[in-house]
Amino acid sequence: MNTYMDCIPCFLSQALRAARIATEDEIKIRKTLDEIGMMIKDIPFSSPPPETGRIIYRKIREITGNLDPYLEIKKESNNKALLLYPSLKNKVENSDDRLLTAIKIAIAGNVIDYGINHRIDLIKNVEETLEKDFAVCDYAAFKSRLNEADEILYICDNAGECVFDRVLIEELKRPVTYVVRGRPVINDATYEDAIRAGIDKVADILSSGTDAPGAVLSTCSEEFIKVYDNSNFIISKGQGNYEALSSEKRPISFLLKAKCRVIAENIGVNEGDIVLKG
Amino acid sequence: MNTYMDCIPCFLSQALRAARIATEDEIKIRKTLDEIGMMIKDIPFSSPPPETGRIIYRKIREITGNLDPYLEIKKESNNKALLLYPSLKNKVENSDDRLLTAIKIAIAGNVIDYGINHRIDLIKNVEETLEKDFAVCDYAAFKSRLNEADEILYICDNAGECVFDRVLIEELKRPVTYVVRGRPVINDATYEDAIRAGIDKVADILSSGTDAPGAVLSTCSEEFIKVYDNSNFIISKGQGNYEALSSEKRPISFLLKAKCRVIAENIGVNEGDIVLKG
Repeated sequence: MNTYMDCIPCFLSQALRAARIATEDEIKIRKTLDEIGMMIKDIPFSSPPPETGRIIYRKIREITGNLDPYLEIKKESNNKALLLYPSLKNKVENSDDRLLTAIKIAIAGNVIDYGINHRIDLIKNVEETLEKDFAVCDYAAFKSRLNEADEILYICDNAGECVFDRVLIEELKRPVTYVVRGRPVINDATYEDAIRAGIDKVADILSSGTDAPGAVLSTCSEEFIKVYDNSNFIISKGQGNYEALSSEKRPISFLLKAKCRVIAENIGVNEGDIVLKG
Repeated sequence: MNTYMDCIPCFLSQALRAARIATEDEIKIRKTLDEIGMMIKDIPFSSPPPETGRIIYRKIREITGNLDPYLEIKKESNNKALLLYPSLKNKVENSDDRLLTAIKIAIAGNVIDYGINHRIDLIKNVEETLEKDFAVCDYAAFKSRLNEADEILYICDNAGECVFDRVLIEELKRPVTYVVRGRPVINDATYEDAIRAGIDKVADILSSGTDAPGAVLSTCSEEFIKVYDNSNFIISKGQGNYEALSSEKRPISFLLKAKCRVIAENIGVNEGDIVLKG
């Protein structure tokens, strides 16, 4: 997905939010805004937004000196999500279609997104999302790919959300390689976050090698690209990965909640809608 | 009021909205964002936001070549407001406190603000605002100043809103000088907009001389400053004028709806609250 005009003010809002989480030093926060402002003219519309996000969050790390501003937030999200895990498992147990329920749960976990907003009531948001109908539901394609797949590449999104992913992984009944970011960026899940969620008990964990907030292939490691190229079923979670991979001609099922107008319009749904696409 | 950190991303969002209203040429819209981006580093926190707004909207005029992008929107707001005029007068007639009701009506007209959002349902917004209680209500000070004033300086805000101002002016029972912007900026009212609302039937109309979206005194004409300095009761409408004049030690009553978080926090109220302050 390309960068849209509306992404540009949003980059600046994100930078302000992230800088404030990274530091209390107002001079550094201001310097972040000034420098991101000067970078605007160099943002190409032809690149996916997380490619620019990568540069912005690098700049914030450089200016604030804080290499992982969201560390505590990520741990807290994960702890909250772990508390929900038994009830999520219960929902699957009591459902008519375990797989579809687990997919919805994995999408519900996508509400944990500090790139968009850091004030979320997790339980309320999850419950609301679970009650929603899919705006796009390519479930048949998902099941058909799953049936034919020997193994699955699962590209994850945010810390905390990993716990919800685990519920889905446990229903896939196939070997899963779970792909995390190579370095901390926003609250996106890294290797440590996946471990905290217990993903190592249900899947292999692989780093994409990128520090972009989405699997922008040109920024990923050769090791990841090789696995990606050989996968015949890829599950992509969240907006950042959708932005990075939506133009790819690969067997990808995108699971996400549309949390901004630009992505909602790109997919043809409303903000807040839940999507199983591709 | 100073510029806050949160104003900076907002300037860019405003610029995008305004550029899109001024032109359909995507290259010019992009150029606007790029140039505003580069200006960010020069925005002083010590100046009121409309001082920067002035520079931004000048830049948009320069890049798009459109000197009054909001002309049609302003006319439309005014026509809609004129249709409401009889019912607004009726509300005053049927109220226990004609003056207070007219003040509330004048504030309700402040929902017409294209700097904040251009999708407004006027009638719905006005009705909702009229039903609200004041979050700040310095009505005693207002009445006392009114009683002592020989004449009133009324610094207006937006086109369309002038019709609501007219309802209040008709209850003031004093000579009123109605101050409009010197040049078109956003949908702020100019001389022509005041005439369209019939203000000339109830007040003298004076230009502040500025093209800032607020009466930033350093940008106003000498003629206006002279009248301002000699006024013993000043009514200031809307956010832009509040931002420009809130630090002034003058007998100013600010009438506004708090439409952004920064201003709401500065005043100590919630977003959406209505305010009669000072």
